[in-house]
Amino acid sequence: MTMAMKITLPADLVNSYVDALISVSDGVGITASFVKQDTATGIKAPGSRTAAIICIVGGAAKFTAALMADMQSFEAYVNSFTCGVIKADVDDSMSMSVLGEITNMVSGRALISANIPGLDITPPQLFSGENLRICPPLKSHVKCFTLPFMVNSGRMYLVLSVYD
Amino acid sequence: MTMAMKITLPADLVNSYVDALISVSDGVGITASFVKQDTATGIKAPGSRTAAIICIVGGAAKFTAALMADMQSFEAYVNSFTCGVIKADVDDSMSMSVLGEITNMVSGRALISANIPGLDITPPQLFSGENLRICPPLKSHVKCFTLPFMVNSGRMYLVLSVYD
Repeated sequence: MTMAMKITLPADLVNSYVDALISVSDGVGITASFVKQDTATGIKAPGSRTAAIICIVGGAAKFTAALMADMQSFEAYVNSFTCGVIKADVDDSMSMSVLGEITNMVSGRALISANIPGLDITPPQLFSGENLRICPPLKSHVKCFTLPFMVNSGRMYLVLSVYD
Repeated sequence: MTMAMKITLPADLVNSYVDALISVSDGVGITASFVKQDTATGIKAPGSRTAAIICIVGGAAKFTAALMADMQSFEAYVNSFTCGVIKADVDDSMSMSVLGEITNMVSGRALISANIPGLDITPPQLFSGENLRICPPLKSHVKCFTLPFMVNSGRMYLVLSVYD
């Protein structure tokens, strides 16, 4: 029961993910600043051009974690992660895979820190588009949170959707 | 072992999904014609404005199923599914949830017909955008297939990504 409680408390997940994003970013030489006052329920990620989403399923939990990036923050991560070798391009798989790797690393670290065992994590699914949006589920048992970060002059959004 | 074999054979999955999409569409009064000759490896879904993606995980399998729709086919499904009550709008959750429901129904039917037990299915994740693209994973152990369908004058794409 303790395990289930842990998972259904969004605050724990949120804190673990925020810390994980900051520390993973730091590890690749990027300062991601959490803009706490702009945290929102629902999904609000204006200006996003790319998204990577991971689904986490297991006996006690079902939720998704997505990173959505505007062009500036996408460029910052691709540039730092590849030491400038790869140019940020939303139509290029190599470049897009950087966002997937960051999402993997953030989720991995967050789940270790939240100490949630027995979960199955899907590989990141990568999307691009102009005015890219994730549409929140209509179901009342789904809680979505958008956690915004400043990355250089751009924005990165961490979107968590928790299914009760 | 038989179970694992069943899952890692993309042909089985492909056939189950094609049949399921046709029959689910038929059930809501839509003729979806499989354009077999345009089937492609990789992800090729030009003109897509919306996407719904489901992750399927379990002991023996890990794959994703996505429906990508252009505006015409999206309109056709929203219109038929809601008997014209809801106007197709990629920025409206109600309207977008139709694509999610169709994806759920197609996946449910396909997995029953492919007789794959013990799988955990994530809720559909819904995306919209102009020039919406799903970026295929770089990993060599992932096989992606795009199965195109004609729906009225529009196109619907069923994208399967199977992780070995």
